[in-house]
Amino acid sequence: MPSQFDPASGTRDFLGADVERREHVFGVIRSVFTSYGFEPLQTPAFERLDVLMGKYGDEGDKLVFKILRRGEHEASGEADLALRYDMTVPLARVTAAYGSQLPMPYKRYAMGPVWRADRPGKDRYREFVQCDLDTLGSASPVADAEVLCAHHDALAALGLREFSIQLNSREVLAGLLESFAIPPEIGPSVLIALDKLERLVPADVVAELAERDLDASVAGELVETLTAPDATDRLRVALKHSSAGTSGLDVVDGVLSIVAGQIPAERIAFTPRLVRGLSYYTGPIWEFVTPRAAGSIGGGGRYDHLIEQLGGQDVPATGSSMGIDRLLPLLPDEEGTPPARLDVAVTAMGSELASEPFDLAASARAAGLRSSVYLGSSGKLGRQLKWASDSGARWCLIYGEQERKAGVVTVRDMRSGDQAEVPVQELSQYLAGLAGQDS
Amino acid sequence: MPSQFDPASGTRDFLGADVERREHVFGVIRSVFTSYGFEPLQTPAFERLDVLMGKYGDEGDKLVFKILRRGEHEASGEADLALRYDMTVPLARVTAAYGSQLPMPYKRYAMGPVWRADRPGKDRYREFVQCDLDTLGSASPVADAEVLCAHHDALAALGLREFSIQLNSREVLAGLLESFAIPPEIGPSVLIALDKLERLVPADVVAELAERDLDASVAGELVETLTAPDATDRLRVALKHSSAGTSGLDVVDGVLSIVAGQIPAERIAFTPRLVRGLSYYTGPIWEFVTPRAAGSIGGGGRYDHLIEQLGGQDVPATGSSMGIDRLLPLLPDEEGTPPARLDVAVTAMGSELASEPFDLAASARAAGLRSSVYLGSSGKLGRQLKWASDSGARWCLIYGEQERKAGVVTVRDMRSGDQAEVPVQELSQYLAGLAGQDS
Repeated sequence: MPSQFDPASGTRDFLGADVERREHVFGVIRSVFTSYGFEPLQTPAFERLDVLMGKYGDEGDKLVFKILRRGEHEASGEADLALRYDMTVPLARVTAAYGSQLPMPYKRYAMGPVWRADRPGKDRYREFVQCDLDTLGSASPVADAEVLCAHHDALAALGLREFSIQLNSREVLAGLLESFAIPPEIGPSVLIALDKLERLVPADVVAELAERDLDASVAGELVETLTAPDATDRLRVALKHSSAGTSGLDVVDGVLSIVAGQIPAERIAFTPRLVRGLSYYTGPIWEFVTPRAAGSIGGGGRYDHLIEQLGGQDVPATGSSMGIDRLLPLLPDEEGTPPARLDVAVTAMGSELASEPFDLAASARAAGLRSSVYLGSSGKLGRQLKWASDSGARWCLIYGEQERKAGVVTVRDMRSGDQAEVPVQELSQYLAGLAGQDS
Repeated sequence: MPSQFDPASGTRDFLGADVERREHVFGVIRSVFTSYGFEPLQTPAFERLDVLMGKYGDEGDKLVFKILRRGEHEASGEADLALRYDMTVPLARVTAAYGSQLPMPYKRYAMGPVWRADRPGKDRYREFVQCDLDTLGSASPVADAEVLCAHHDALAALGLREFSIQLNSREVLAGLLESFAIPPEIGPSVLIALDKLERLVPADVVAELAERDLDASVAGELVETLTAPDATDRLRVALKHSSAGTSGLDVVDGVLSIVAGQIPAERIAFTPRLVRGLSYYTGPIWEFVTPRAAGSIGGGGRYDHLIEQLGGQDVPATGSSMGIDRLLPLLPDEEGTPPARLDVAVTAMGSELASEPFDLAASARAAGLRSSVYLGSSGKLGRQLKWASDSGARWCLIYGEQERKAGVVTVRDMRSGDQAEVPVQELSQYLAGLAGQDS
C-alpha cells in the first residue's frame, strides 16, 4: 500500500546497490557509443511549453508534465514549461540553436530521464531512462549500419544473450503496397494491421485488413507473402516492378553487407513484416527482440525529414533508441553486480577522538579499497565486528591498546576469521596484496 | 539575444566536450565518496507537492517549480507535484519510507540536478547540479570528520588548488552569546550580523549589531574578540564558563585531531566568526573557501534534528554539500579535458556499401580507440582527410584499391603527415602500439 513517504506515483527511489548497477550499465553503453565517435548531449529537464506541445500528437500531448508559471502568474493556473518527454524534440531544438557550430555529421547520444504522465503499471513508469543514439547529416546507409552496430555492440557488451535484430525498410513496405495495388489512402491503415503479425495469427490479420477496406483476396495474398517460410524470396519477386521497393531492398541488402563483419549473421535478418509503429520513418527500420521479453527491447530507423518538422534543420537522420528500464531485468545477474558497501571496516577501540583508526582507513583507500571507520557509540569489539559484517566488509582492521604498543594492526579476514598482525606502515601495501589475490 | 531555440531561461544545453568534462568531475567525486563507504541515493526529479512545501521557508517555497495536475484536473490550475529543490528533503522522505531497511549509520551521497525558480544571472541557474554527502545515525565527531575529509579529498582529487576549510561549531557560537550575556531573543539576529565579518569591516558589523539592539560596548567587545589576531585564544578564555561553549570547543578540537593525518594543517583552521547562514545546524559547521572565488565553494555541518523536522526519522546527522557549477570554473584546465571526438578516422573510398572500412573502424575500437568511418557523400580523399582533421582524429586510415589488392591499410599520422602500410590483420595491434607511445 502506498504510504505518504513513497515516491510520487510512477517514480522510484534507487538505493545504493541499484544505483551502482544502473550507473555501471550506463557506463558500458556510454563507452561503446563513445568508441564509435558519438558524443554526448545533455539538454535541460524542462523545455519551454511551446517547444514540446503539438509534437507528439493529441495522445502524447496529454502525457506531457507541465510546469505552472511562478510568482504573480501562478494564480493564472497556466503552464509555461514542460518536462522532457523524449530526446528527439530537444535534439531538433539543439540543431536549430547551434546550427553550424555542430560537427556534421552530428553523431550524438543522449541518455537520461524522460517523463510521461502515463498510467503507472508493471514496468511502466512516469520517470524512466531513455537512451538515444542518432546521426544527423548523413544520407548514407553506412550511417544506418553504424547506429545499428553501436546499439548491437552495447547490448553485447552488457552481456545480453539471445537477442536478434529484425531489419526492414519503409521503402520496402511502400513497394509492397504498390505491388499489391493497395489504394494509397488505406496504405497507413494496412501497415498498422500488418504490424500485428508479430502477435496475432495470420487469419486474424487478414480479417482486420478486410475490416480496413482491403479486398479480402488481396489481404489473403499479402499476409501469405509475408508469413510464408520463403517470405523474403517471394517479396523480392513481388517488388521487382516497384522502384521504391527495389531501392529499399538495395538499402536493406547494403546495411546487411556492411554489418556482416560485426554482427553475427544469425543475429540479424531481413524481416519484411516489420512495420514499426511510428509514421515518420523514411528508410531502413529495425527492432531488437529477445525471446525473453514481449515486444521489442529497442529499435530505430532512418527519419529524414522529422528534425525539420520538429523545428530543427532539414537534415537526413538515422537513430536507434533503447529503454534502459526494459533492458535491466534482462541482463545477466553478474553484469553490474555492485561491490559490497565496504571492503575494509576499521574498528575504533579507545578514544573516539583518536586519529589512528581514521588514518588506517585512509591507508586502505590508498590501496584502492572502500573503507570506513566505525561511527557508532559502542566500545565493544563484538558490536563493532557485527557492524563490519553487516557492511559486507571483506576485511576488518582491529587496532586496540596491544596493537598500538606494538605498532601493528590486526587484519581480520571476515570470511575465514583468520587474523594477521601487520606493521602499520605496511598496511596499504599488504591490503593491496590481499585485494589482488581476491580478484 | 535569446532566440526561440535557446534552452529555457536559467537552463543550459551541454554539448559533447562539456558533458565529458562534467561527467569526469562527477566520476572523480563519486569515486572518492565511494572509497569512504558512502553509497549513492537517487530520488525522482519530482516529489508530491506536500512533501516539499513548507520546508524551505516562505522565500524558498516561492522558488519551487510546481507541476500542473493532468487530464480532467488540468483546468483547475492546481499543482500536485514539484521539482526537487534540494537533496535533503528527499533524504528525509527516504529515511521515513525505508527505515530499518537502510544501513545504520546510513552514509549516502546524492549528486544530480535540482531546480529553483531563482532569477537567472551570472553563475546562477534554475537547473544546477547539487552534490550532498551525509551520514545519518551517528552522533560521533568521527562522522563529522569523515564527511569533512571525504569532501576535502574530492576537491583535492579534482586538482583544486588554494582552498581551505573554516571550522567552527554552533555550540561555540551559543557559548559566545552566553559568555557575552546576550539576551537569547536577539541571539539569532546577532549571529546573522556576525556572519558579515567575512565581507564587512568590523566597524560596520559593530554598527549593525547596535541596530539589532545589542549594547554598543558589548558589540564592540564581541567583534574585537572575534577579529583579533589571537581570536581563538581569547575565545577559549571567554568560553571557559559556558558548558555549551566548552563542549563545542572540545568537538572542534576533536575534529581537528581526527583529521590531522589527512588534511594538511595549513588547510583547516578553527574560525570562531564562521556562522553559516542556515539555522538548523546543531554542532560543528564548516565552509570550504578559496581566494579565487567570493563566498564559499561548499560547506556543511551537523544538523541533529532536521531530518525529523522534514518528515523523516529523528536521527543525528551530519553532512557536507557542494555546488558543482561553482566548482567547475575553478578546476585546473587539464582536469577533465576530454579527449578528441575521434582517435581514428576511417576514409571510405570505393563502394559505400563495402564492409571493409567498417571492419577497420572495429579493429581500431578493439584497440581501445574512438573510431568512425566517413559518412559523407564525397568520394574524394582530400575531402575525407579534411573531415578526419576536423574530427580531431590522431590517425586516419586510408583503404583504396591499391591497399585492397595488397591486403594492407595505410595509417596516416594526422600530426606529422607520415604514412605507414600495415597488414589488415595486424591493424588493431599496430594502433594499440601507437596509442601506447602517445600516452
